[in-house]
Amino acid sequence: MEDIGELAAQLREFAAERDWEQFHTPKNLAMALAGEVGELVAEFQWLTPEQSRTVATDPEASPRIRGELADVFLYLTRLADLLDVDLLQAADDKLQENSKRYTPETYRGSSRKAPPLA
Amino acid sequence: MEDIGELAAQLREFAAERDWEQFHTPKNLAMALAGEVGELVAEFQWLTPEQSRTVATDPEASPRIRGELADVFLYLTRLADLLDVDLLQAADDKLQENSKRYTPETYRGSSRKAPPLA
Amino acid sequence: MEDIGELAAQLREFAAERDWEQFHTPKNLAMALAGEVGELVAEFQWLTPEQSRTVATDPEASPRIRGELADVFLYLTRLADLLDVDLLQAADDKLQENSKRYTPETYRGSSRKAPPLA
Amino acid sequence: MEDIGELAAQLREFAAERDWEQFHTPKNLAMALAGEVGELVAEFQWLTPEQSRTVATDPEASPRIRGELADVFLYLTRLADLLDVDLLQAADDKLQENSKRYTPETYRGSSRKAPPLA
Repeated sequence: MEDIGELAAQLREFAAERDWEQFHTPKNLAMALAGEVGELVAEFQWLTPEQSRTVATDPEASPRIRGELADVFLYLTRLADLLDVDLLQAADDKLQENSKRYTPETYRGSSRKAPPLA
Repeated sequence: MEDIGELAAQLREFAAERDWEQFHTPKNLAMALAGEVGELVAEFQWLTPEQSRTVATDPEASPRIRGELADVFLYLTRLADLLDVDLLQAADDKLQENSKRYTPETYRGSSRKAPPLA
Repeated sequence: MEDIGELAAQLREFAAERDWEQFHTPKNLAMALAGEVGELVAEFQWLTPEQSRTVATDPEASPRIRGELADVFLYLTRLADLLDVDLLQAADDKLQENSKRYTPETYRGSSRKAPPLA
Repeated sequence: MEDIGELAAQLREFAAERDWEQFHTPKNLAMALAGEVGELVAEFQWLTPEQSRTVATDPEASPRIRGELADVFLYLTRLADLLDVDLLQAADDKLQENSKRYTPETYRGSSRKAPPLA
């Protein structure tokens, strides 16, 4: 798998081969994405923040979480493809915007000002 | 922005410059991801499936949705980076698995068997 | 079960008997709530809006959806109890507020103005 | 507001007066619920578990969180009403089931066995 574009193309083919384009409306895919993120969040719900930092080394939880991340990414890629959004470009634009909006000088280490990554 | 690896590196730097690594535990980032997906879902909640197909041409909704997709992708990339997961590789693995599990012969056009993309 | 207050009391006891108060922080419960809502959303993701209206008569899906609604309500009740929020009172306040904000005259049948129930 | 039944009746009237029944399909309401839960989760995303325990005393965050809980409860009540589910009864059934399934003897204090409340 070279890049997101190739993944999107493979998902297009995957849907076409099964005649699933009819189900893949942006509305439905946004719901599917929410469902998968729910499963991902559930993996971390009872962990302390510290435990969540080392979960990647847990032989049981680690492959499960990798699978959930994959599911989220698959639906996100498919949804963005249907909406004609270039994920990398959109993320880059947003990151530039946030870099100016949340200057290190003002937001350094502040939990008060709530650190939105994005 | 070349690829996901470069995006992840920029997010690492973004967090470091603001001393926000302390907030970026996988637990917290999974929550932030859920929050952003909630905003994305809200964009589609009152649309019919058909309307959701053409929302990309709506001059008002379209940039907003692009921004939400970016937010989701930024948090997903940051979370996967902290967990040492290669998103493209994980998605590829999952897609191969699903291709075998949901064969076109058996699952073609079936809404009954529920079409999981992933 | 008489009312929400009794449900909250039983959940308090349920947690105490298992020594699970340590896991039941508002942060963790909000995550658990998000996970359960993800499961609920997944029940509807491939249905058309029309199909979703009759799903309550589906002998297979109906008990599953009832169980998901229960899960969401249980976590919501537990979370509100820990935060000392009276759900009925808070909902009533919000509904009064929305009734004034979204007057029938202005918002009647409008999909444009997006109909927030709440 | 006496009980959930009265709240459901008021929401029915609220929707009818605005001709919004057309938007209130179970599918759409499940999405709206997910959107509101996303906002609720976002309130807790950067807090430590300990901070989340005392957030109810924060004069700024507390009314906002109360409003989010209300929004979640309003959509949950409306959705359950449309699906003909008695929330209290469904929650009671699930709680009885969980009480037998997760016996205090076996699950006491265990984070390993993951404590599902529901």
